[in-house]
Amino acid sequence: MRNDHMHLGSFFTTYLGHHLAAWRYPETKTEEVLDLSLYKEVAELSEKGKFDMLFIADVLAHNEEDIEYTPQIRLEGPTLMAALTAVTNKIGLASTLSTTYHHPYNVAREFSTQDHLSGGRTAWNIVTSAHDNEAQNYGKSQHLDHSLRYERCEEFVQVTKELWNSWEDDTLLFDREKGKFLDGSKISPIHFEGNYYNVRGPLNIPRSPQGNPVLISAGASPRGQEFAAKVADVFFTIASSTVEEGKAFYIEMKQKVKSYGRDPNQFKIMPGVVPFVGQTQKEAEEKLEHFQELILPELGIGMLSRYLGIDLIEHSPDTLLPEVPSLDQYNGEKGRFKILSELSRKENLTIRQIARLFARGQGHLFVVGSGDQVADKLSEWFLGEACDGFNVKIPYLPGGVSDFVDYVTLELQNRGLFRTDYEGTTLRDHLGLEYPNVKLKTNA
Amino acid sequence: MRNDHMHLGSFFTTYLGHHLAAWRYPETKTEEVLDLSLYKEVAELSEKGKFDMLFIADVLAHNEEDIEYTPQIRLEGPTLMAALTAVTNKIGLASTLSTTYHHPYNVAREFSTQDHLSGGRTAWNIVTSAHDNEAQNYGKSQHLDHSLRYERCEEFVQVTKELWNSWEDDTLLFDREKGKFLDGSKISPIHFEGNYYNVRGPLNIPRSPQGNPVLISAGASPRGQEFAAKVADVFFTIASSTVEEGKAFYIEMKQKVKSYGRDPNQFKIMPGVVPFVGQTQKEAEEKLEHFQELILPELGIGMLSRYLGIDLIEHSPDTLLPEVPSLDQYNGEKGRFKILSELSRKENLTIRQIARLFARGQGHLFVVGSGDQVADKLSEWFLGEACDGFNVKIPYLPGGVSDFVDYVTLELQNRGLFRTDYEGTTLRDHLGLEYPNVKLKTNA
Repeated sequence: MRNDHMHLGSFFTTYLGHHLAAWRYPETKTEEVLDLSLYKEVAELSEKGKFDMLFIADVLAHNEEDIEYTPQIRLEGPTLMAALTAVTNKIGLASTLSTTYHHPYNVAREFSTQDHLSGGRTAWNIVTSAHDNEAQNYGKSQHLDHSLRYERCEEFVQVTKELWNSWEDDTLLFDREKGKFLDGSKISPIHFEGNYYNVRGPLNIPRSPQGNPVLISAGASPRGQEFAAKVADVFFTIASSTVEEGKAFYIEMKQKVKSYGRDPNQFKIMPGVVPFVGQTQKEAEEKLEHFQELILPELGIGMLSRYLGIDLIEHSPDTLLPEVPSLDQYNGEKGRFKILSELSRKENLTIRQIARLFARGQGHLFVVGSGDQVADKLSEWFLGEACDGFNVKIPYLPGGVSDFVDYVTLELQNRGLFRTDYEGTTLRDHLGLEYPNVKLKTNA
Repeated sequence: MRNDHMHLGSFFTTYLGHHLAAWRYPETKTEEVLDLSLYKEVAELSEKGKFDMLFIADVLAHNEEDIEYTPQIRLEGPTLMAALTAVTNKIGLASTLSTTYHHPYNVAREFSTQDHLSGGRTAWNIVTSAHDNEAQNYGKSQHLDHSLRYERCEEFVQVTKELWNSWEDDTLLFDREKGKFLDGSKISPIHFEGNYYNVRGPLNIPRSPQGNPVLISAGASPRGQEFAAKVADVFFTIASSTVEEGKAFYIEMKQKVKSYGRDPNQFKIMPGVVPFVGQTQKEAEEKLEHFQELILPELGIGMLSRYLGIDLIEHSPDTLLPEVPSLDQYNGEKGRFKILSELSRKENLTIRQIARLFARGQGHLFVVGSGDQVADKLSEWFLGEACDGFNVKIPYLPGGVSDFVDYVTLELQNRGLFRTDYEGTTLRDHLGLEYPNVKLKTNA
């Protein structure tokens, strides 16, 4: 059964907001970019708005080109997530972490610990890292090939899950009288021997409240989609251009999930959406215009250059986009590349126009309007079965959360399309995901 | 200048207490071993007692032999440390993390993030990991050789520090008007090329409030001591048997620090101490006896076997200890090995006697008595210049913290040997450590 209400993620990075110029907006708490106080406020506002989860994005490098004009600071995701545990009670907490530059034994421990301390509210957004500047911080001159990254990633996740399942649920006895702390027969080494990892196990942490933390994947490439269909609980994606295309993609992905023998309802598709919301349409549009005016031209075009893998600074901003590489040749983040190259082909826009258009939503579904209007758009997608909910990319911190909660969430609740309170205690509860059965390997 | 009051760490693991049988003690909150609530309480009690820092120990495997009889759970240290940030205000937060099984770019990010979010209260206890069962969780059948581990560790720490220093302190401008977020000329790649790591940098996080998080080292071997003298701010050690030996060791270590061109006062020597405290000596001794009675015999002897690298279960517990390997041949944790092998030679004790003696303090300085008596012992060491303070290994959680704070801390404060309140805001302030100067590499 598909849920009768949508799921919402409160998505942010430590860039002060999804909009490129968010940090210049007067209401953005720019000076608090490194302080717990800001993220605490984001978390509390999101929990007040009953979001399914807070979603912290992360990358392993920064872009030196436009670092002066837009914040490139990335506090480490899992550390920030852990710090927010004690200031929240119900909301799920998700963080990005790359399989390419970490080890499964460490990752299994981090997310298991986080799941215990938060009482079952943890999710891991699995990424493979896409950029050469990340590779260079780890002793590699170039990034691993795209398909190899996913092959390794799949093995990584398998190891991690086996470690999470290396203790049965009822292992702990706490029998003070007899001096028996636990039942050792319910813990097994995993003896994993793969192409990339050899891990004996077991984990040195009991199985966590959710059994396994929730797995999120955002891979947009065909290989990334297969990976998600095979292992992820939540699929975070760049929305298609229209509801119809969205619906076709939704059906296709659910079919893929089925083909792996999984229940498609246990796979939640949540495209990103960037909302600019005001009390009225006019107020929202004025706010957006204010933000757009704050983008320095060199900034937007620099960003476009990066996502397309070509240098646009050399070109006049009022000319059309030059030839871009084909999707196959491009070894970076394929989702945004596709959106951008299509946008330029279809709409005949100049570099400046594309940069401006891209800057406001960065390839994601973009909505501007009153709470009612934004709710209309989200409802259209949700009721049209083009998604199971949305990852709301907060335009500026922390005000972008309250804008959404005060106007849009309220409207969605009035329409019966979003919860008015949390019903369960774990993120799996919020998302309607089943608790995974343990398959204990008997001394494999 | 040596400080006129001592430094104290509140040391714990997620084993429910330093005493092997702590979990069976009625007042121990055993059932909360996986809950934030327990560690929150430990943190709050420690902060109330004005400890310099909370110190979370961690290892990357567990010992399967006696897992049924004593807790072997290890929540991941840095995750737990981060979770405690929001529930504390002044106390420092230290966690163990191994250089052998992590990457410097990740570690630099984790501790920098933690230092920002905590407002400069972070320390990293640098370990190289000592056990084969840890190696086996990372694709290695045996642990790396001891000296190789340290060589790599030294390079690891160097990379980490260069990353922490890759942003100058006053890089951020927040100039909303001109659209200039920061001064890019104050950020430099590190271009590190070593024997083990190649890291381009810079970090994607500004320099943190302490400049560099505090570095702790606990290596007891000659190589470990050299490492500590060269790079650590705090040296956590197993105490010598007597104050005189402690003083000789203290002088020797400070001399080593000097030989690296460092100020010996900027190197704090904090041996571990296990205190059993009561309102009276009698109460304390009864409490200790209660704990000792809770140790199952197979447990203490199993633990002894592990630390000595020989199997003692086969021997009658009432015979003398058999021949042990020489210190050079032993590739595990050398500090405890040394204590144990000396103990057996000097005192002519049976296996059972050594196991019982070892179980209560596990090689650390052990004190039982009233607040006054314990304070006497600590003062004797501190005033005798055999240490700069102590890492207090909490015998059981969380009550072991209040026992210490209510009786010992109060007494030390009365004697003017411990702070009655925090004076600064960062861990460096608490420890009397200078703020490290940045040496920015100009495009090295």
